Amino acid sequence: MHLPTKVTIKEVGPRDGLQNESKFIETQDKVDWINLLSKTGLDYIEVSSFVHPKWIPQLADSEQVLKSINREKGVTYAALVPNIRGLERALTCNVNEVSVFMSASEGHNKSNINKTIDETFPVLKEVVDEALKANVKVRGYVSTVIACPYDGPVSPEQVLKVVDRLAEMGVYEISLGDTIGVGVPTQVESLLSTLLKHFPSNLFAMHFHDTRGTALANVVKSLEMGITTFDSSTGGLGGCPYAKGASGNVSTEDLLYMLSAMNIETGVNQEALIESAFFIEEKIGKKLVSKQMEIARNERSANVDNARTV
Amino acid sequence: MHLPTKVTIKEVGPRDGLQNESKFIETQDKVDWINLLSKTGLDYIEVSSFVHPKWIPQLADSEQVLKSINREKGVTYAALVPNIRGLERALTCNVNEVSVFMSASEGHNKSNINKTIDETFPVLKEVVDEALKANVKVRGYVSTVIACPYDGPVSPEQVLKVVDRLAEMGVYEISLGDTIGVGVPTQVESLLSTLLKHFPSNLFAMHFHDTRGTALANVVKSLEMGITTFDSSTGGLGGCPYAKGASGNVSTEDLLYMLSAMNIETGVNQEALIESAFFIEEKIGKKLVSKQMEIARNERSANVDNARTV
Repeated sequence: MHLPTKVTIKEVGPRDGLQNESKFIETQDKVDWINLLSKTGLDYIEVSSFVHPKWIPQLADSEQVLKSINREKGVTYAALVPNIRGLERALTCNVNEVSVFMSASEGHNKSNINKTIDETFPVLKEVVDEALKANVKVRGYVSTVIACPYDGPVSPEQVLKVVDRLAEMGVYEISLGDTIGVGVPTQVESLLSTLLKHFPSNLFAMHFHDTRGTALANVVKSLEMGITTFDSSTGGLGGCPYAKGASGNVSTEDLLYMLSAMNIETGVNQEALIESAFFIEEKIGKKLVSKQMEIARNERSANVDNARTV
Repeated sequence: MHLPTKVTIKEVGPRDGLQNESKFIETQDKVDWINLLSKTGLDYIEVSSFVHPKWIPQLADSEQVLKSINREKGVTYAALVPNIRGLERALTCNVNEVSVFMSASEGHNKSNINKTIDETFPVLKEVVDEALKANVKVRGYVSTVIACPYDGPVSPEQVLKVVDRLAEMGVYEISLGDTIGVGVPTQVESLLSTLLKHFPSNLFAMHFHDTRGTALANVVKSLEMGITTFDSSTGGLGGCPYAKGASGNVSTEDLLYMLSAMNIETGVNQEALIESAFFIEEKIGKKLVSKQMEIARNERSANVDNARTV
């Protein structure tokens, strides 16, 4: 296998994870969690979203979160912004980077943004222009790159069209999201082989949801295609709005396990990461489902059992 | 990707799954479950084990199970046998096929069989000889092909030595087990590229445990190496004796989802499989964790919600 030797993990749990949880997590708990994540060796954390609180009340405290977290040297603290008003709010909080977002499919774009794909471009372009003027880098998310919950399968050519426009705007990276977690490696290969005919692999990050258990298999195929940046969520937080209770983003700690075992460097410390996962699990008050957390739970209970028998 | 167009799934839940559950499942429930599995399109079911009940009390009823199940045409009903006494018992029950087993690592072999690897070969040879005389095909399991809970990493060369001896005995297929579920695709590739220098790919089946979430990624790498037979367990049953509470075998329905989405034919019906998973979940009395079951649960509860709002 031809694999990269180094990969960047972008932690999206505080944004993509928490926005899909029904419970509002107290601002101080979010801040404490992000501070823990900042100490794991991760160098990129998407901390919140400036989408209007009417739509994502879970992240209504984005300004306070960004203003309260400790900023570790070398860590990028990013936030999602939907439009120029969101950007303005984000810029007042010393955000390091922003992300804009849209979908590759009309159905999901309409449902998520209430605009057609063509209507969305100028809105994002305004954000990108203003952010770059303010010396803030912009990342682009493209959702539903494999399939759409409304429109069904999405062709690589349709994704290419959206990618083309975003790249032209000046986003430095495009995160390709299998939003509903249906993708399999053959589809990932088909998508990437189309895109990589036109763009270098370092333009792309992959953003897999593990709804059907295929996320790590898709990561491996992406690595083989030359991708070196992956989004993930501590504890596999996030769920799927289209399959209530299903798995969310691929979990950062399971991704890290696999990458490490394949001798791919990330700079992230597994133990510290798992501690941060247990921290947010307690605050959310529901069991998170990553394999690494499960193993850590068992080791802890085994240690308790051993302590009892001594 | 160069992938096979057709794959055989060997269902090992009634044996490998149930032997790792602490609860004894009533014989009639096992029989009913196997009868459901027989109707899913699976053409191979490992229904029980003839290891002495002192070691695996959960499967003490292997004779009754084999004698009570409905035999569907075209389905192979197999059982695990540890030695000649086990084989004799199995042959009285009209077993279609038997499996012998050993480990690639001394530590696990000693712990599991209470013999060294060299001491194990003649015991298995006796079984293979007698079974073949009785016109019963024999499959061989090799455990700990990636790593051993006692000895650590296991080299492909060590696996090759064991495979060599089993092939020489006349087993028709060797199932390579990542018993503790630590493997990643690079290791699978390394193992298989060593073995496939000496043996054809159709000698091997892969048997992955999903303890760390890498099973499906390992399946994909195996498919790319030409492997067309995979063991799995409905509902991801089984756990791991070395990590209490952790995930068991890769789940048949998640494997099936991925294969189907990659246009690989298996002949298995997903809906029927999930029904059988819910059946055994209820009998075991604990929530099984496959992604497909989770999705089905959510769809069911959504349907209930919809019914309420109408």
